[in-house]
Amino acid sequence: MSSRFRHAALVGKYQAQGMRPLLEDIAHLLERRGVEVSIEAATAINTGITGYPVLSPDEVGASCDLAIVVGGDGTMLGIARHLARFGVPVIGVNQGRLGFITDIPVDQVQQVLRAMLAGDYEEEFRAMLEGEVVRGDERIYSGFAMNDVVVRSGANAMVELSVAVDGQFVANFRADGLILASPTGSTAYSLSAGGPLLHPGVAGLLLVPIAPHMLSNRPIVLPDSGEVSIKIVAGREPSVNFDMQSLASLLHGDTIRLRRSAHRVRFLHPRGWNYYATLRRKLHWNEGAVHEGPSGG
Amino acid sequence: MSSRFRHAALVGKYQAQGMRPLLEDIAHLLERRGVEVSIEAATAINTGITGYPVLSPDEVGASCDLAIVVGGDGTMLGIARHLARFGVPVIGVNQGRLGFITDIPVDQVQQVLRAMLAGDYEEEFRAMLEGEVVRGDERIYSGFAMNDVVVRSGANAMVELSVAVDGQFVANFRADGLILASPTGSTAYSLSAGGPLLHPGVAGLLLVPIAPHMLSNRPIVLPDSGEVSIKIVAGREPSVNFDMQSLASLLHGDTIRLRRSAHRVRFLHPRGWNYYATLRRKLHWNEGAVHEGPSGG
Amino acid sequence: MSSRFRHAALVGKYQAQGMRPLLEDIAHLLERRGVEVSIEAATAINTGITGYPVLSPDEVGASCDLAIVVGGDGTMLGIARHLARFGVPVIGVNQGRLGFITDIPVDQVQQVLRAMLAGDYEEEFRAMLEGEVVRGDERIYSGFAMNDVVVRSGANAMVELSVAVDGQFVANFRADGLILASPTGSTAYSLSAGGPLLHPGVAGLLLVPIAPHMLSNRPIVLPDSGEVSIKIVAGREPSVNFDMQSLASLLHGDTIRLRRSAHRVRFLHPRGWNYYATLRRKLHWNEGAVHEGPSGG
Amino acid sequence: MSSRFRHAALVGKYQAQGMRPLLEDIAHLLERRGVEVSIEAATAINTGITGYPVLSPDEVGASCDLAIVVGGDGTMLGIARHLARFGVPVIGVNQGRLGFITDIPVDQVQQVLRAMLAGDYEEEFRAMLEGEVVRGDERIYSGFAMNDVVVRSGANAMVELSVAVDGQFVANFRADGLILASPTGSTAYSLSAGGPLLHPGVAGLLLVPIAPHMLSNRPIVLPDSGEVSIKIVAGREPSVNFDMQSLASLLHGDTIRLRRSAHRVRFLHPRGWNYYATLRRKLHWNEGAVHEGPSGG
Repeated sequence: MSSRFRHAALVGKYQAQGMRPLLEDIAHLLERRGVEVSIEAATAINTGITGYPVLSPDEVGASCDLAIVVGGDGTMLGIARHLARFGVPVIGVNQGRLGFITDIPVDQVQQVLRAMLAGDYEEEFRAMLEGEVVRGDERIYSGFAMNDVVVRSGANAMVELSVAVDGQFVANFRADGLILASPTGSTAYSLSAGGPLLHPGVAGLLLVPIAPHMLSNRPIVLPDSGEVSIKIVAGREPSVNFDMQSLASLLHGDTIRLRRSAHRVRFLHPRGWNYYATLRRKLHWNEGAVHEGPSGG
Repeated sequence: MSSRFRHAALVGKYQAQGMRPLLEDIAHLLERRGVEVSIEAATAINTGITGYPVLSPDEVGASCDLAIVVGGDGTMLGIARHLARFGVPVIGVNQGRLGFITDIPVDQVQQVLRAMLAGDYEEEFRAMLEGEVVRGDERIYSGFAMNDVVVRSGANAMVELSVAVDGQFVANFRADGLILASPTGSTAYSLSAGGPLLHPGVAGLLLVPIAPHMLSNRPIVLPDSGEVSIKIVAGREPSVNFDMQSLASLLHGDTIRLRRSAHRVRFLHPRGWNYYATLRRKLHWNEGAVHEGPSGG
Repeated sequence: MSSRFRHAALVGKYQAQGMRPLLEDIAHLLERRGVEVSIEAATAINTGITGYPVLSPDEVGASCDLAIVVGGDGTMLGIARHLARFGVPVIGVNQGRLGFITDIPVDQVQQVLRAMLAGDYEEEFRAMLEGEVVRGDERIYSGFAMNDVVVRSGANAMVELSVAVDGQFVANFRADGLILASPTGSTAYSLSAGGPLLHPGVAGLLLVPIAPHMLSNRPIVLPDSGEVSIKIVAGREPSVNFDMQSLASLLHGDTIRLRRSAHRVRFLHPRGWNYYATLRRKLHWNEGAVHEGPSGG
Repeated sequence: MSSRFRHAALVGKYQAQGMRPLLEDIAHLLERRGVEVSIEAATAINTGITGYPVLSPDEVGASCDLAIVVGGDGTMLGIARHLARFGVPVIGVNQGRLGFITDIPVDQVQQVLRAMLAGDYEEEFRAMLEGEVVRGDERIYSGFAMNDVVVRSGANAMVELSVAVDGQFVANFRADGLILASPTGSTAYSLSAGGPLLHPGVAGLLLVPIAPHMLSNRPIVLPDSGEVSIKIVAGREPSVNFDMQSLASLLHGDTIRLRRSAHRVRFLHPRGWNYYATLRRKLHWNEGAVHEGPSGG
């Protein structure tokens, strides 16, 4: 049986044990199905795999029609954000505990990949954020985020941030910081900070204040058609990060402008995958009572 | 200056003091602008206003092109839900503290209405929920809700509810109950139960468990294109209400099916109205610190 | 080796499968150690165990110096509340998942009980609540609670409750209801409603509003030396329950007066028991990440 | 009428407008009542007040039997923490919005102080925290805190902290950080991070994780008789602060040991002061609905 895909790139979490033979097994499976195999550059260096063309992430984007990522959600995050603008779909294989978005366990990889190469998969698109930091008239940084953009104080102090949406003033937030999350990011840091779950099919951006001074400063879900601007009003050593990649040393008056990116991440999941099953598994909803007081039996 | 509107119905909160002269003042203003005036039936009975045609809510829907509602958000809720299917826009005048959706203070009503009749207004559409209760093969109730549908135990006990979206199982929730809220309802009961704010422009439904047994059963925002079904699995005296109108005596196995209604409420706001300003006012964001600990000065 | 205890009562969760042989095994173990064995009356009826004296809970309190309870936390709650005023210590054996307070798994019961009878145990005292409902000059109900007392609306409506501590006004709460919990109850319903964990060694009472109208109505920990009074101000079909045993049909103006009881529950735990280990186990703190977003790997 | 107090020190918030004449007015009032007046050293320098003995904080502690503090809660925090070990009572006068602990408005200061000097006051003791940072065998820092001690990551990253109480392991927390708060601190940063209110009469310490990775890592109230140790397990640039005074550059393996201090702060409040009234005022409980959804009228 042949493959729907012509040329796949392999991406692996660096330094993980057993990564090389696992990637080689996947490579052989792909070759047997007639799929051309390349290795992403950092993966090749770190695993020492040879015998396959080595491609930079941009070259993967330009020439491959599939990327198979072995690692956790963090590994996936890095490469998927990069490939989004090329429209290359990604498949996630997880060596350890399954993630929110890497959902094929290593021991089922052969069987599941075979089916997926034959077209038996669920395709899912996930929104990304993009934006820039503006200082005066200058754009001093721009970036993408699959999960979230976080603005916060770098020191043990509150930051004050003025938020507007499409030019309309929302509020001044005094808090440890602010998170702007995509639906994908709603299960990451945002959840710890008290945010709701946001189904990937909702066209929304999630604005979550971190430990806000005012108790009524609750998380807000905004339409993803708008531009959110966050201006640094006060606070020591404020910083912003896109998917946890920090840009330090913001100044008062700097403004972060954020919006949904025109690019989306394309995930391929095994047939039968569904979002709610992932929530149940990751949030332990399938278990018995997480807490069961003395009245519970 | 003439009016954009041809025929307005007046609706007033029953038994409120000073309602009759206020409605009469509004009626005179409308007449001076050439607008035909009718009185909603219950309003006429309760205030004793005479001299205007008396219309049932359905007749208001059929023959008027504007309804002016004097009262709080609750009064507005009742008539707006009814007029949604006719597409008749509503304007809210508030005698007491301004509400989330009734935003013209009595002392500005003459001036603001004059401008609005001339076309100087912001139009806003709000999603509604609709749904039915199904027992076996029978539909035993159907209704609309502008804010929320709440399923809960009637007694001092937990209820267990099985939730699915478009036929996909989401989870079994053991909780005091579940709220399915529209964006409009996100500032009502849902907020007390820990839900986020949902901008009216977000095409989402908000599912919020009330005091859930599992700490990871967090509020979820779902796409409003789906149908949410909530099945009564266990619990004593379960009940459901649509906008706080209770349908008692549900049985185990009964299923509530909910979706966004095809009808939307049409609000007219004074020029310059904006959603964030309303949030700031109602949630006291414009004030100083809601809490300011000993480190605060 | 002989036992520290002279006369033990056995109490078992009714209708549980395998209860009779399990209780008989425990009885034999006790007899072999020279401990006199009695069976609590309802347990005897439900399991059909014969050959042992049958005692009412009050008789257990008057004549036994130990009670061994087989069941979940709920079973324990019922008998422990009763035995508290007699000072009879209780040991909890759990057939299913371990509870917060029933901590000996069935498969270790022989070995653990042997050690405990020999004096190898940790003794722990837990505070209880007691109080009464006052209508006019009359006391219409009085009761005890090991977990919590809950005042709430019986219908789909908010209740308004006026709270005072030692005669000092605290606040009027508009909410689904109010929980007054002991430290033991802090892991039960209170936790679902947003309350903190309260170590059993803290001399505090935990007041938790359920879905309060005001976002700043946060849980409060009060000194357990005070008397808390909760007066029904408004709301439909208000009710109060002590450990989930409901007293229905409260009226506006009724006042619930609550305080720490002079009686405490005496638990015996296996040597090495500790509170934090129980928290870790029941709240799944010992697991990997409960949620691990896409940044997590 | 003479004064109960012999020698009062004046402390004022530096650089505040109108501070000098206000302090001078208070000084004159004190002198008229026969109270000796001194000025705290930094206050003297910043306001330029002359004609009174200038005392260091330690000298205030050694020779005064009253301190009158003009400023916000932060100003009070600084001096009260210092005077606690001398047992010198403090009175708080607030120029702006009243604080949680500075409760005499400037426009009532003459009248209220006169009554308090005559003995008409409420005395209240507040627990403080004390502790040290231990690296290997060395104690590298020690300090006091009236509000809280906060351990956190200095960077945009999670910190992992291992907590024990009296040598018993509690849990490993992965979070933005951990707050250990006194009852006084429960209305400060802890409240923003989701902690409960802790009445000053409760002998408890409040442990609150900030944005914890695990949703079941809820705030815990611990007996204040125990020692809490917090060990840095992982995280970038971890730091600790005592009442927001930062000690930077902690290392992995450093341990912060904390306990209730033997010293307590002594506050004098105007007659009739009560804790709940302060909560109502500061948390706006006395207002109408903080949020009142469309069902609210």
